Amino acid sequence: MTNNKVETQNKIRTGIVGVSGYGGGELARLLVQHPHIDLKYVTSATYAGKPLGAALPGFVGHSPLVCEVFDLQEAIDRCDLIFLAGEYGLAMKSAGPLIAAGKKVIDISADLRLKDAGAYPIWYKIEHTSPELLQKAVYGLPELHKEELKTADLVANPGCFVTSALLAITPLLSSDLIDPSTLIVDSLSGVSGAGRSKFGLDYHFSEVNESAKAYGVGGKHRHTPEIEQELSLVAGKDIRITFTPHLIPVTRGILTTVYASLKGSPRNLVDLYRERYADDPFVVILDEGSLPATKHVTGTNYCNIGITVDERTNRVIVVSALDNLVKGTAGQAIQNLNLMYGFPETTGLTMTAMWP
Amino acid sequence: MTNNKVETQNKIRTGIVGVSGYGGGELARLLVQHPHIDLKYVTSATYAGKPLGAALPGFVGHSPLVCEVFDLQEAIDRCDLIFLAGEYGLAMKSAGPLIAAGKKVIDISADLRLKDAGAYPIWYKIEHTSPELLQKAVYGLPELHKEELKTADLVANPGCFVTSALLAITPLLSSDLIDPSTLIVDSLSGVSGAGRSKFGLDYHFSEVNESAKAYGVGGKHRHTPEIEQELSLVAGKDIRITFTPHLIPVTRGILTTVYASLKGSPRNLVDLYRERYADDPFVVILDEGSLPATKHVTGTNYCNIGITVDERTNRVIVVSALDNLVKGTAGQAIQNLNLMYGFPETTGLTMTAMWP
Amino acid sequence: MTNNKVETQNKIRTGIVGVSGYGGGELARLLVQHPHIDLKYVTSATYAGKPLGAALPGFVGHSPLVCEVFDLQEAIDRCDLIFLAGEYGLAMKSAGPLIAAGKKVIDISADLRLKDAGAYPIWYKIEHTSPELLQKAVYGLPELHKEELKTADLVANPGCFVTSALLAITPLLSSDLIDPSTLIVDSLSGVSGAGRSKFGLDYHFSEVNESAKAYGVGGKHRHTPEIEQELSLVAGKDIRITFTPHLIPVTRGILTTVYASLKGSPRNLVDLYRERYADDPFVVILDEGSLPATKHVTGTNYCNIGITVDERTNRVIVVSALDNLVKGTAGQAIQNLNLMYGFPETTGLTMTAMWP
Amino acid sequence: MTNNKVETQNKIRTGIVGVSGYGGGELARLLVQHPHIDLKYVTSATYAGKPLGAALPGFVGHSPLVCEVFDLQEAIDRCDLIFLAGEYGLAMKSAGPLIAAGKKVIDISADLRLKDAGAYPIWYKIEHTSPELLQKAVYGLPELHKEELKTADLVANPGCFVTSALLAITPLLSSDLIDPSTLIVDSLSGVSGAGRSKFGLDYHFSEVNESAKAYGVGGKHRHTPEIEQELSLVAGKDIRITFTPHLIPVTRGILTTVYASLKGSPRNLVDLYRERYADDPFVVILDEGSLPATKHVTGTNYCNIGITVDERTNRVIVVSALDNLVKGTAGQAIQNLNLMYGFPETTGLTMTAMWP
Repeated sequence: MTNNKVETQNKIRTGIVGVSGYGGGELARLLVQHPHIDLKYVTSATYAGKPLGAALPGFVGHSPLVCEVFDLQEAIDRCDLIFLAGEYGLAMKSAGPLIAAGKKVIDISADLRLKDAGAYPIWYKIEHTSPELLQKAVYGLPELHKEELKTADLVANPGCFVTSALLAITPLLSSDLIDPSTLIVDSLSGVSGAGRSKFGLDYHFSEVNESAKAYGVGGKHRHTPEIEQELSLVAGKDIRITFTPHLIPVTRGILTTVYASLKGSPRNLVDLYRERYADDPFVVILDEGSLPATKHVTGTNYCNIGITVDERTNRVIVVSALDNLVKGTAGQAIQNLNLMYGFPETTGLTMTAMWP
Repeated sequence: MTNNKVETQNKIRTGIVGVSGYGGGELARLLVQHPHIDLKYVTSATYAGKPLGAALPGFVGHSPLVCEVFDLQEAIDRCDLIFLAGEYGLAMKSAGPLIAAGKKVIDISADLRLKDAGAYPIWYKIEHTSPELLQKAVYGLPELHKEELKTADLVANPGCFVTSALLAITPLLSSDLIDPSTLIVDSLSGVSGAGRSKFGLDYHFSEVNESAKAYGVGGKHRHTPEIEQELSLVAGKDIRITFTPHLIPVTRGILTTVYASLKGSPRNLVDLYRERYADDPFVVILDEGSLPATKHVTGTNYCNIGITVDERTNRVIVVSALDNLVKGTAGQAIQNLNLMYGFPETTGLTMTAMWP
Repeated sequence: MTNNKVETQNKIRTGIVGVSGYGGGELARLLVQHPHIDLKYVTSATYAGKPLGAALPGFVGHSPLVCEVFDLQEAIDRCDLIFLAGEYGLAMKSAGPLIAAGKKVIDISADLRLKDAGAYPIWYKIEHTSPELLQKAVYGLPELHKEELKTADLVANPGCFVTSALLAITPLLSSDLIDPSTLIVDSLSGVSGAGRSKFGLDYHFSEVNESAKAYGVGGKHRHTPEIEQELSLVAGKDIRITFTPHLIPVTRGILTTVYASLKGSPRNLVDLYRERYADDPFVVILDEGSLPATKHVTGTNYCNIGITVDERTNRVIVVSALDNLVKGTAGQAIQNLNLMYGFPETTGLTMTAMWP
Repeated sequence: MTNNKVETQNKIRTGIVGVSGYGGGELARLLVQHPHIDLKYVTSATYAGKPLGAALPGFVGHSPLVCEVFDLQEAIDRCDLIFLAGEYGLAMKSAGPLIAAGKKVIDISADLRLKDAGAYPIWYKIEHTSPELLQKAVYGLPELHKEELKTADLVANPGCFVTSALLAITPLLSSDLIDPSTLIVDSLSGVSGAGRSKFGLDYHFSEVNESAKAYGVGGKHRHTPEIEQELSLVAGKDIRITFTPHLIPVTRGILTTVYASLKGSPRNLVDLYRERYADDPFVVILDEGSLPATKHVTGTNYCNIGITVDERTNRVIVVSALDNLVKGTAGQAIQNLNLMYGFPETTGLTMTAMWP
């Protein structure tokens, strides 16, 4: 076993539905290190009946877990908290019954992120089958919704791009320092963001390697309405942004560069951000003149942020870096779990970067 | 010998000063394939006395050329045209005497790019020692200055970021379709753009690999005034932009994403760009909905451009891709040479991408 | 058009069957630069009816060619020489009729490489349907079979690993300097060697990137019998080797390290190799103490070779580097074409490395 | 602080001399996660006076440690155990006084690895100044020297290539299954193995990326005598091997492929290895037919091993994969620390791979 913890009586019995994807795999990697978690139940349609190490090669030889076919009753019987890390639609179908059975649920798909059910047909090309869950689910960005998360049973874990954008933008917006109509969000993403099961030329090594491209340009990426929903909440009015994701040949990492026109002359923005995030242990505001790199947060739950003012054009440029699979997905989900159970927010998440 | 050309009498005798850098090396790679060029003279302080293959490992075993110490009189005696590919300051010192001796000169450094000598102390931290050359030098972007280049003796070859930005922006500006004050230029660059001799952590493999970062944020990059100079020329008024370069872990390639607010409702921009570049063989305007990738132009002199309108925000987003060492440096220099000598613009530059 | 050649009357009309794979695509890239070739006919089941640029993004915007469905009669009517770059089995079926119609054929699959039809069920799990072609086909390694190639109508282009191994080993074997039973061939390959259409986790960017592994260990790789066939021919007796391929996260390149025990004390092996390859323009023997790197031959038809003796164990270690898609596939095929038509061997293949 | 441990009274006070290199940095990353360690003292000549985050960007914003200039008395006063992670020569000079002061020392340089002082002038081009330490130092490969390590005060932590080779070879040797004169060790290494401070073309991103090469060929690499020393110890007679390292473009990871001729016909080698390593928690023997990949152990202290017999040549091929900075350096050092202090061997080292 990876983990030499002996006392498991009081641990939270946890399951991962969809363990063989990159999000599910990262949850497994982090959960086996968490002192209060007992990972009891892992499911994978593809690897059902095989040891976890067959699905996730990092576990070969040191995990007794076996992948199972997802069964709602099994999940209810054997888990206190279930992470839903499967395909779109899983949470719409399963989150309700799990909650009804008194379980806690953290969904890392997009099923429960948008409050407006009408947005799903537009952005995800599906009708939402459980709109009642949308109001119940707490949007799981702790830096915005910490208090609600402490009492949540159902959490919609945010998108990776969304997390990087919101942490960079919201301090400016809540301080009314920028003209929101000028907001541009330009992001670079590693390839693991596309998941493990979408095969094809787009993620074929020889086509991706040594290349860079933009995609979903012109407001077509599904994280756009999610960014706008939370920005509008912070601003107290409708916000529309231009969001452009780019694919670069790295496995992990998101680097987001935000542009906005300042309303007045700049004040000390580094201090402003530090005050704003004083109680948020995973947001690191860099010193004036420093800029983040994705490698400096790889494998960690940190989001590093650098702030610069272009005095020639009176624009502020904020650059944020995070690991799309940790603060962008699995680490954030565990941060939410910590809040839901009253553990210190950093429990099980104190690792520093896998650097270099 | 790399090249089995036998008849060399009527060829242009050419020299590369600073052959061992990435720009100089790429010039050598392309020039030995050019049907009208005889590469006679290559210099390198570091590799003087050694075969070209010692400086440029791609030439090991198949070039008779030997690196020499740069000597002005040798260059004059043995060359008709000299490429200056050395350090900053070389062209300030040497371009004048070479021109005076009746030679043609293409400088690939930044020494002669800015028309305003007063900009050098600000952006390059040096006093310009030959300001009279600045007006004489033709700015070597063929898509903007083709007629002047046909009679030029002295060419200032553009910066790599600048080329990618200008080709993406100028059709919008000359058609008065955008509000220039909203222009944002966001670029991703491969590491070869930093050159071969700047050692240190910034370009050390283990620090750059699997990472992405922004640099020179806030209008600090030296290509900013160069972009603005040429945009202002096209617009007929002063233009200021926000330019943010990013470093990504690829060797070659620049991907530039330009953002600007449209003045009215969008018309068919793809056609507009195609008309604008109808006589420019190296600019490829992609079909509506297509976006460029740097890998699709690697090793070539092409700049591929995709245009999208974000109708939700009425912004236009233009993405351009080029190889920083070819259309961004050496290929463009040879395109300029072709114009200077009345050769077809594409001579020696018809290769398609090294893909995958 | 990529190519500004105007006079095409006397050019060889050429076709590529299976142009959308990496081998076919590389043939297209190189053939459009060849002065005596007119590429007339390109086929792809996947991209039939679409422009070549849809199949091969490097051609977007600058090729008038359109992909067609392969039709034997079309190939006969419109081509003098046909490259077969499709799936296993294509050449077994089509090479015979093409030859019978007086055409020349170069097959870049493995269909015709092994002289022993009985080897196909063992190594390729298929019965060979045209065993009569196996004796007719000339094995297309010019450094071993140059004279036969000059009169060949049907050429079996060698495997990429095989080329790197044979060029490294045969001088030792023909000079009887080593004990052949000690031969070990250890190769590193870029991912493009696996082709463009095999999708799955094995070539999914996030699984391959930042990793290295061996595969086909224990004499299971299909290039094993091909290496042994040619070594046995050179040695005049049966040779068996251990061959281990490794996958490394680069797109192009094969680096092969060969180990063998020397029979006596070492003599000047660099000179021996240089004499052996004196008439082979694409084999570069490095100076004593120098070792090849794949990047130094990327995009070229060169194979660079370094030779070292481990005096502590009296073993010779030969390291060869080539580009799997050029000297390992398409470049070698064109070298064969040059020999078949009596052109200088280097015609259309004089490019130096895409370096860095 | 990275670590929310509160009770530090009984923790081992630890120092890292040379914290800003990749070995020192990895020690810091792992030590702050270790439940029984209090990292008190970190030194770096380059970053003296600066926060740890300036030296190691993964620590920016979440470590109170400040880099100091190394001072022997400070180390003695403030630490119970000191890791020496500095340049060659540091341990020769400092290990003696530290031991004399009752401290424990783990040296991760090569200063104390070779038992024969006479080997240093030959392989490291320096005279050993403290030969008396060589016999005192325990060679820190727990899988070979576990009992001695339990009582050691001074440990020479093995080289990264050496660890991968010894774990792969020694079960064959101790079982007398192979002819040791046929042993060949062929290794692939990530670039971080070259360290952080050796700048130059060899580790410049654009020269290393998308390339592979061999180096130190012919028994010139310094890990050769170290491999041979330990193999000879196991075999009870002098063993000489051929060792060839290769550089591949990944940051972390060593993949070693070992070749040897079997003495008789092969038996079940997987079981043999599993028995041999039954008490070694960090050696994972893969199932028959499975082969390791470096990515599957990235960031972990595991060494995964796959064993294959080439029945056509009666050779055994053993492939081992490890992370050069963890099992190859810092993780192994902490494994040694655990043994020295009587902690469970896996304490602080139970993380699974950073995958993908």
